[in-house]
Amino acid sequence: MVEYEDFQGVAYAIRDMVIRGAPAIGIAAAYGIAMAALQSPAINRSDLWVDIKEAAQMLQAARPTAVNLTWALDRMLMVASCHSGTTAELKERLILEAGRMADEDVAINQRIAHHGAALIEDGDTIIHHCNTGALASVDWGTALGVIRLAHEQGKHIHVLVDETRPRLQGARLTAWELQQYRIPFEIINDSAAGYFLHTGQVDIVLFGADRVAVNGDVANKIGSYMLALAAFDNQVPVYSVFPTSTVDLLMESGENIPIEERDPGEVLNIEIGGERVTPEGAMGRNPAFDVTPHRLLTGLITEKGIVLPPFNENLPRIVSPVNPAPRT
Amino acid sequence: MVEYEDFQGVAYAIRDMVIRGAPAIGIAAAYGIAMAALQSPAINRSDLWVDIKEAAQMLQAARPTAVNLTWALDRMLMVASCHSGTTAELKERLILEAGRMADEDVAINQRIAHHGAALIEDGDTIIHHCNTGALASVDWGTALGVIRLAHEQGKHIHVLVDETRPRLQGARLTAWELQQYRIPFEIINDSAAGYFLHTGQVDIVLFGADRVAVNGDVANKIGSYMLALAAFDNQVPVYSVFPTSTVDLLMESGENIPIEERDPGEVLNIEIGGERVTPEGAMGRNPAFDVTPHRLLTGLITEKGIVLPPFNENLPRIVSPVNPAPRT
Repeated sequence: MVEYEDFQGVAYAIRDMVIRGAPAIGIAAAYGIAMAALQSPAINRSDLWVDIKEAAQMLQAARPTAVNLTWALDRMLMVASCHSGTTAELKERLILEAGRMADEDVAINQRIAHHGAALIEDGDTIIHHCNTGALASVDWGTALGVIRLAHEQGKHIHVLVDETRPRLQGARLTAWELQQYRIPFEIINDSAAGYFLHTGQVDIVLFGADRVAVNGDVANKIGSYMLALAAFDNQVPVYSVFPTSTVDLLMESGENIPIEERDPGEVLNIEIGGERVTPEGAMGRNPAFDVTPHRLLTGLITEKGIVLPPFNENLPRIVSPVNPAPRT
Repeated sequence: MVEYEDFQGVAYAIRDMVIRGAPAIGIAAAYGIAMAALQSPAINRSDLWVDIKEAAQMLQAARPTAVNLTWALDRMLMVASCHSGTTAELKERLILEAGRMADEDVAINQRIAHHGAALIEDGDTIIHHCNTGALASVDWGTALGVIRLAHEQGKHIHVLVDETRPRLQGARLTAWELQQYRIPFEIINDSAAGYFLHTGQVDIVLFGADRVAVNGDVANKIGSYMLALAAFDNQVPVYSVFPTSTVDLLMESGENIPIEERDPGEVLNIEIGGERVTPEGAMGRNPAFDVTPHRLLTGLITEKGIVLPPFNENLPRIVSPVNPAPRT
């Protein structure tokens, strides 16, 4: 368990992937704003607003691909800008709002799991990419929440866990969570998914989303695109699972979603038997996300139900106008 | 440098992937037969034949997917069965034949490189999967030989090296070879290839082959199929590079090629920062190869030229009947 005492710590934790998973990042950023307000020495509202805005910019810069971050920051800024009380009252209000968002996240993930689990049949084998479970959200998770609920419903399922290079969130986190839930699983190399899909050993593919465009294109952990390609090529259904706060209504297509390239050291620092594998001086590239075109996806599992193609019609309709994902 | 003093050691080295790469396996197996003959205490030809046959069976069992192994063993058995001299003369003849095959391998790889390098243009970025270089053959290599020759021809090329999980032959061996040849490269996760292909950063994709069916389906290192899918989806040319001894004329389609599943420990024993990543007790699956359907391939680069679709017509035509790949 890691604790953070100031918003700079939260921003660092988001950038360094100590906090990860789109929903968790959003909630953490909301608490980051509340913490920035508490930290602020400002004694009038306009100085406090300056400090809050500054914190929002710093938190926003921590992870350019995640839209939940923008969504959560915008909601907190909206609360701050519309508040008419004292600075002390505003600080309290921001803590309340962050807590409310955390509670909502749990409820949303439970609804996601409810809709998704209906797609899982007894005896299914599922390929899952990255980590989308309790460790990536406030509780319960998105794609892994679907798997967990299907298991709790008594369905006998088996999960092939993509190890998810470079940071191995599948092999590390998803495997650990599945062990806790006593769900049978096997870890595979990301590159082996195609073999299992082609040989008829997989019934459904599930992964999360870091940002979803209006047309249904999904930016998610690197490798999701190739996994979706292999599922599509073998007519195995493939779903992206996310809260509707992940949808960026101002992003018409996934082609424009900015993709973060991270430190190549994450690719190069791999060891087997205690020895570093890559030769001294070797360079690397490390894009952290890729975009899965909507044409490869069977559907999108959200808290408001399952969205089917045509996504560019059905997705904006289901994303409630009461709670849009505005961008500053 | 590892040296083997008996054919059992050679069989072990093939099974344990100390010797790897389809061409190298074939030559090693040929020397294995010569060594078995030298080891044999037999004083008459029929006893010697029994020992040679036994060694061939043991060597054959070492790697079920590699057809060069079958090809090399068959050629050595043919020499042994047709020989009319003394046991001493036969032993000498088998050493001679293995050496001849090694020389031929070098010449064949040079012709492969010659045909393939013509496809590489100045400024090209190439994705390469696994290791197919000098370390995987007697000298020069197949796909990596193409890259090496293009570089020696003065073309400015850049290689994105698939790390190639689970044994990381790309990150370990291909990266090392490219450093020796002073060819610029960057190591990437296998799952990131789709991102680079989709964002227009790649001009051509090259990988080897462990066994090729008559219809052009290619069994190769796990991950080749998903890489070919991503290349195809983005209209980037993708070629498999191999000597025609890799073609199995009795295999009509890749669907029937046996795929070796190896020890899951190769997937699970991954470390970062000196720590094992996977949780205690986690299970894994480790298919070592997959089959790339011919429909995804732009062409096949062999020592006899580049084979284009329809492969089921053009491939058997180019595989000379003088030097087929028979099976026992």
